[in-house]
Amino acid sequence: MITVEDATAQVLSRISVLKPERVPLLAALGRVLAEDVISDIDVAPFDNSAMDGYALRHADVEGATEQAAVRLAVIEHIPAGVQPQKMVGAGQASRIMTGAPVPVGADAVVRVERTRPCEGQGGPGGSVQILTSAKLGENIRGRGEEVKAGDAVLLIGEVVGPAAVGLAASVGHADLAVHRRPRVAIVSTGDELVDVRQKPGPGQIRNSNSYSLAAQVVDAGGEPHVLGVARDTEESTRALLGRAGEFDLMVTTGGVSVGDFDVVKKVLEEIGELDFWRVAMRPGAPQAFGTIGGTPFFGLPGNPTSTMVGFELFVRPAMLKMAGFTSLFRPRVNATLTHDVSKKVDRRYFLRARLVPSGDGTYSVAAADNQSSALLTAMHRGNCLLSLPEGESFIPAGSTVMCIRLDMGEGTA
Amino acid sequence: MITVEDATAQVLSRISVLKPERVPLLAALGRVLAEDVISDIDVAPFDNSAMDGYALRHADVEGATEQAAVRLAVIEHIPAGVQPQKMVGAGQASRIMTGAPVPVGADAVVRVERTRPCEGQGGPGGSVQILTSAKLGENIRGRGEEVKAGDAVLLIGEVVGPAAVGLAASVGHADLAVHRRPRVAIVSTGDELVDVRQKPGPGQIRNSNSYSLAAQVVDAGGEPHVLGVARDTEESTRALLGRAGEFDLMVTTGGVSVGDFDVVKKVLEEIGELDFWRVAMRPGAPQAFGTIGGTPFFGLPGNPTSTMVGFELFVRPAMLKMAGFTSLFRPRVNATLTHDVSKKVDRRYFLRARLVPSGDGTYSVAAADNQSSALLTAMHRGNCLLSLPEGESFIPAGSTVMCIRLDMGEGTA
Repeated sequence: MITVEDATAQVLSRISVLKPERVPLLAALGRVLAEDVISDIDVAPFDNSAMDGYALRHADVEGATEQAAVRLAVIEHIPAGVQPQKMVGAGQASRIMTGAPVPVGADAVVRVERTRPCEGQGGPGGSVQILTSAKLGENIRGRGEEVKAGDAVLLIGEVVGPAAVGLAASVGHADLAVHRRPRVAIVSTGDELVDVRQKPGPGQIRNSNSYSLAAQVVDAGGEPHVLGVARDTEESTRALLGRAGEFDLMVTTGGVSVGDFDVVKKVLEEIGELDFWRVAMRPGAPQAFGTIGGTPFFGLPGNPTSTMVGFELFVRPAMLKMAGFTSLFRPRVNATLTHDVSKKVDRRYFLRARLVPSGDGTYSVAAADNQSSALLTAMHRGNCLLSLPEGESFIPAGSTVMCIRLDMGEGTA
Repeated sequence: MITVEDATAQVLSRISVLKPERVPLLAALGRVLAEDVISDIDVAPFDNSAMDGYALRHADVEGATEQAAVRLAVIEHIPAGVQPQKMVGAGQASRIMTGAPVPVGADAVVRVERTRPCEGQGGPGGSVQILTSAKLGENIRGRGEEVKAGDAVLLIGEVVGPAAVGLAASVGHADLAVHRRPRVAIVSTGDELVDVRQKPGPGQIRNSNSYSLAAQVVDAGGEPHVLGVARDTEESTRALLGRAGEFDLMVTTGGVSVGDFDVVKKVLEEIGELDFWRVAMRPGAPQAFGTIGGTPFFGLPGNPTSTMVGFELFVRPAMLKMAGFTSLFRPRVNATLTHDVSKKVDRRYFLRARLVPSGDGTYSVAAADNQSSALLTAMHRGNCLLSLPEGESFIPAGSTVMCIRLDMGEGTA
């Protein structure tokens, strides 16, 4: 049996980054840039006002205060989107709106709250009292202050968040080249499986894994394709596993444990290549990985929790690598164990657990009472996987243990 | 001017939770349950094997070891999904697959790795050597061990994650009642705005806010509806703001500052109600909130960063409340400021900043050099909003400051 670390390394060494595609801005959200995003303009494109107020010469208002206001003649009104027509001379000001171009001659803007209108309500032909001094350039956003035409505003490999979407839009990109979302085929195996809408008969069980896996795929930024249930025959299994080439990744559940009804392994050895099929871990030692005609293949165990944990540890990082991410693992945090744990010495354990902040930046963690791998309840109520290493058989309460945070995304510091 | 706290409280007091809707399981992912999810079956539905192995009477293998194996006659092979036909008597065992029903008479399962096949390869009619003792009930998952029919497996108000999807599927729910995703209308205002595909002429600027806002709406779990640009006339503004009733929420950008070209406020006072329109904060003091015919309305300022910050502080929590979430705010963390900050005493500042873990559970934080509210670069490269309270005008390096983590979702401990 291979260790979790070796298995992870082996999986990732087999995974290539998917080709980029060009998609509309909003569809790029959450994905990884496949090219630098270059500005076609200066931002700001012109010197403009950061405030509603009056554009003026700062020398004219030196020493101005509420008590010693300076009166200026208002020569123009400049709304946003309109080019100024008049030069501001000494003793003059133009009323200016936020975002409007600063007129020639003016070198500062005083916000309207620090002014008092006189004749003509402070509009053109009238006058205004300025109640404060202004620094050179105050409330003026300079042309090219953010970006100059030709500058890269977003870099290849960066993740597109809402601010990146806005940045790209402001520099003329209605679409972006990003890495493709992995298309993931999901196959459940087993004669005992019935659809969620059916009431299971004796010995039968609902096919819940294809739903939880599809949700995990969506959560990891992929596109799930549920292909259905492979029955326990080589024909049925071959028919579904043979479709791997249509997808970026195939995940099966069940059919990879030791028993002789386990045809998945047999078919996989026939039409694909098997890298490993057991990992020294619990839950879910039967964790197969290989390729079918070049498509990476994950054979996860059939117990619901084992399936989810296997997906977390192996499939999710693989999907993230495919999608161009460089941060592939969820944050890990140390915590104080609140109770004793006994375990098998030769396995890495991943207990469904709940991490609680102690208030001083440290954490305590308690495993769920029921760790049965058939139960998703503990997985649902927990917020982490408590990882207990090989080589230990008893971990006493108070020990410092490592937890994988399931409530946080990769790359969170 | 109202404080950020008062503004937030006033916004949330006006927001009601949206009606539930019934959606397919996968569409419920990330949403809030509007009803308990009740199991229609016992889970497990029958006593079944947790391992591939042999079902037997534990008394028969007491004291068995590698060196002192116990030989049992194999009477049956029980695959998953098949009902056992034979009772296991003393000295007998049935080969059993993971998930298969435990036959009458057996009270434990020994996994296949702890057995050695003898005659008939350990199949029916043959025999098997058991190399270990077994505890009563070992490797048997009892009927109803997880859940009994009629039990609630998921509770109203819980967020549907991948494990909840799997749990719901396993207890017979192909769809779930969850709160609706808020439908959010986005209106940009201003004569100076041009489409992202157009090259801005003199005095013009690209309408990037409708893209960044749409991305923020998606990120907050909502459905963005970009209605277009309201020009600086009452007619144009009234035409778009008048559509508020078609949506759960309306957000505008621009047109809420002091200037007289700001018609949004005028129209809003005519067709709606204004609760507040200035908040003691920077960036973005002009932050309007009110209702139009009962639909909550947010008038965010037009500077790209001010728009995003206003969305984060006011719109996002409102959307989350609408969608049924009870945890409405992103996690806050204390950090050590790495540099001095000067600020206006009467405003709460929200600086775009980067939080860095120090390795011992504490954090340091540095604001981006350029805090211009026209720039989304600092927002893109940052991972938090550094919040500096009113009442302070100088915060020296080394101070402990509060940061709102933009890289983590609400409810993360």
